[in-house]
Amino acid sequence: MNKIEPRTLPGFMELMPNEQILFEQIKEKIERTYKKFGFLPLDTPVLELSDVLLAKAGGETEKQIYRFEKGDTDISMRFDLTVPLAKYVAKNYGNLSFPFRRYQIGKVYRGERAQKGRFREFYQCDIDIIGDEELSVINDAELPSVIYTVFKELGFDDFTICMNNRKILNGLFESLEQKENSVEILRIIDKIEKIGKDAVIEELQKINISRDSIEKIIDFIQINGATDEKIKRLQNLNIENETFKIGLEELTQVIKYVRSFGIPEQNFKVDLTIARGLDYYTGTVYETFLNQYRELGSVCSGGRYENLAEYYTDKKLPGVGISIGLTRLFYKLNELNLINANKKSISDVLIVPMIEDMTVPIKVANNLRNKGINTEIFLNNKKLKAKMKYADKLEIPYVIVIGEDEVNSGVLKVKNMRTGEEKETLIENPEL
Amino acid sequence: MNKIEPRTLPGFMELMPNEQILFEQIKEKIERTYKKFGFLPLDTPVLELSDVLLAKAGGETEKQIYRFEKGDTDISMRFDLTVPLAKYVAKNYGNLSFPFRRYQIGKVYRGERAQKGRFREFYQCDIDIIGDEELSVINDAELPSVIYTVFKELGFDDFTICMNNRKILNGLFESLEQKENSVEILRIIDKIEKIGKDAVIEELQKINISRDSIEKIIDFIQINGATDEKIKRLQNLNIENETFKIGLEELTQVIKYVRSFGIPEQNFKVDLTIARGLDYYTGTVYETFLNQYRELGSVCSGGRYENLAEYYTDKKLPGVGISIGLTRLFYKLNELNLINANKKSISDVLIVPMIEDMTVPIKVANNLRNKGINTEIFLNNKKLKAKMKYADKLEIPYVIVIGEDEVNSGVLKVKNMRTGEEKETLIENPEL
Repeated sequence: MNKIEPRTLPGFMELMPNEQILFEQIKEKIERTYKKFGFLPLDTPVLELSDVLLAKAGGETEKQIYRFEKGDTDISMRFDLTVPLAKYVAKNYGNLSFPFRRYQIGKVYRGERAQKGRFREFYQCDIDIIGDEELSVINDAELPSVIYTVFKELGFDDFTICMNNRKILNGLFESLEQKENSVEILRIIDKIEKIGKDAVIEELQKINISRDSIEKIIDFIQINGATDEKIKRLQNLNIENETFKIGLEELTQVIKYVRSFGIPEQNFKVDLTIARGLDYYTGTVYETFLNQYRELGSVCSGGRYENLAEYYTDKKLPGVGISIGLTRLFYKLNELNLINANKKSISDVLIVPMIEDMTVPIKVANNLRNKGINTEIFLNNKKLKAKMKYADKLEIPYVIVIGEDEVNSGVLKVKNMRTGEEKETLIENPEL
Repeated sequence: MNKIEPRTLPGFMELMPNEQILFEQIKEKIERTYKKFGFLPLDTPVLELSDVLLAKAGGETEKQIYRFEKGDTDISMRFDLTVPLAKYVAKNYGNLSFPFRRYQIGKVYRGERAQKGRFREFYQCDIDIIGDEELSVINDAELPSVIYTVFKELGFDDFTICMNNRKILNGLFESLEQKENSVEILRIIDKIEKIGKDAVIEELQKINISRDSIEKIIDFIQINGATDEKIKRLQNLNIENETFKIGLEELTQVIKYVRSFGIPEQNFKVDLTIARGLDYYTGTVYETFLNQYRELGSVCSGGRYENLAEYYTDKKLPGVGISIGLTRLFYKLNELNLINANKKSISDVLIVPMIEDMTVPIKVANNLRNKGINTEIFLNNKKLKAKMKYADKLEIPYVIVIGEDEVNSGVLKVKNMRTGEEKETLIENPEL
């Protein structure tokens, strides 16, 4: 028979068992943390009607969509978890309690150009808090607490949650009468770390920003110092613009409560250059960096939006949310050897029968499993050496060999595979 | 702005939060049980190359596939978890340890005709044990133990795991020189419960089975009695066919060890009419029924196959596996009110601040979360009544109201929302 070569599509992650065990552990830690903050689970379909899913999309996003017809239905695969959330909340508005706090961990799809470390199928781990008509800004301070807890749980210490408020940026541009240039200005100032201050000034001149305005913009993005100093210097700019003032007030509140939530000073900061996508976020925005690995980019981002579901409903549904791109994060951490996929088995113990009748080995497995111990029996007829090799290769922590002697005496030897130590235990009540 | 109606595709399950909580609980119980038996996690892509995914498919299956082109790549959505497993094992053969025991819980896609209770996207919860060249038949006895543990965990007692061995059926038909009619014969005898014995005889006559053979077939499928009696009566048929004999020997072994695995007599039986798909299974086959709800059909099925990945590799990879169709099972159990989606919140406690400064409420939430207690703070500015209504609606078990008095005294009242009882606790060390 002609064989078909077993291939996996490029851009689709498929892990070996030891990596998968680690991936699941990380996913579970994120999920457990989301639950600790009382977020409700949600699981929406991977497929949606194209007109529903793409109500808001456009440009680059739309090009990347996996979209097809089945029968006469125009179907698309979801490209994030936010649009399905908007649909869900609009659809079920009357049956939900607000603020609606939900988490969703699921795969999303983007047909990007294949590239190392870029994925076409990837997990997003999202939380959002949706208000009905209004949502207190203190919620914006709670999400950094979730981010902080997640990354601490994952074993990181040296990370920074960077925060800004879009109203501050918008207010500044309004005050300079540059509102219509804001997209372009943000694009340029975003490059300051790469190209330097002078090049930024040059580019701003090219789009006809006045010398005076450029000076103010540069002054603004160069504001530095500790968090409270930054806030103070923002106040001292004396910008007479309502949007700016509200933004600064919100940021001040968020910073106050971020501290109440117990996030240490070294794990958060105000970063006035963060904007994150221009047509979506309207207030607080977040980015999170592992400081020793800035090249990863932001590992957890999000922000506040005025209206989640305006394409589907007249209800005003303000919200705030964050997202962890788990697949890419896992790939990068693995590549940098920052995580170790050293667990190769789910089993705590392997039972190795060296007799023909499996009754006793099975009994021991039952007794162990009833105690909640993950147990595996090597049932294939192999030599002892081959069976032990299996245990070695999978690094199963404990092995119990069962032969005639053990069956007759009722006494077993549990071998700790790491130390080589052996301990006696009973068939009727086995313990590791 | 024109609004787009927020719709979900027909045939795609999308649950309300209380239902989703229950769904997740069931999924977790299944996963925990799979792990207890030492199965390794696997997560393959939802999308595969069409030539890889459809190597074996044909007929009805192929028609139901969601298939499309992206760029010049022909892509299909997986319709089960077995074909991706075959691809994975063939692809990674050299890096896996055998027997390879894996579980996978994930969504699969079939573009079936929309119908109540039929899903186009549904979860399958699979386990398989794959051997390299050989796989002991005792593995076939372990899987019923997994099924038994899962359904006990889910709270069921009155269920039956029905077992058969395809070699027994094939051997019988070979001995009657009806091998080439076996598909048709199985189709007919499968209907005996519905149409009765006489109609089955009539249909068998129509396809020119001899009177003598029909008698033997009817005798065979009417074999009844307790498990050991059935085995004995099968032996007494004295069918001189090697396949039959091997099948009977295997079934006898499986039954012996199913007992060793501690499955009570009332939870398993031999059912000689079970065949399950004709071109795939080659030995043991399973179906599982909730006895008071036979109309659900089999809730967990599977069996033994000679060769998992013959379309991809020359390696002989025999295996045995089972699958639970979780989405359909959940839907049916919910419809029959056999499960109660009465948990409406993930939070153990809601903190209700009645002061402007949120510092203390946040501190209490931190202290509770640090103890692993799922905690939510009502941060929006509402009247006490509205906040309590939220707790009521979500049936959050405990509520802590925090006002000036509590802040000043450092003492909190924890209200048990079910009993109405109140208990005092401390801000610095809150307990439920």
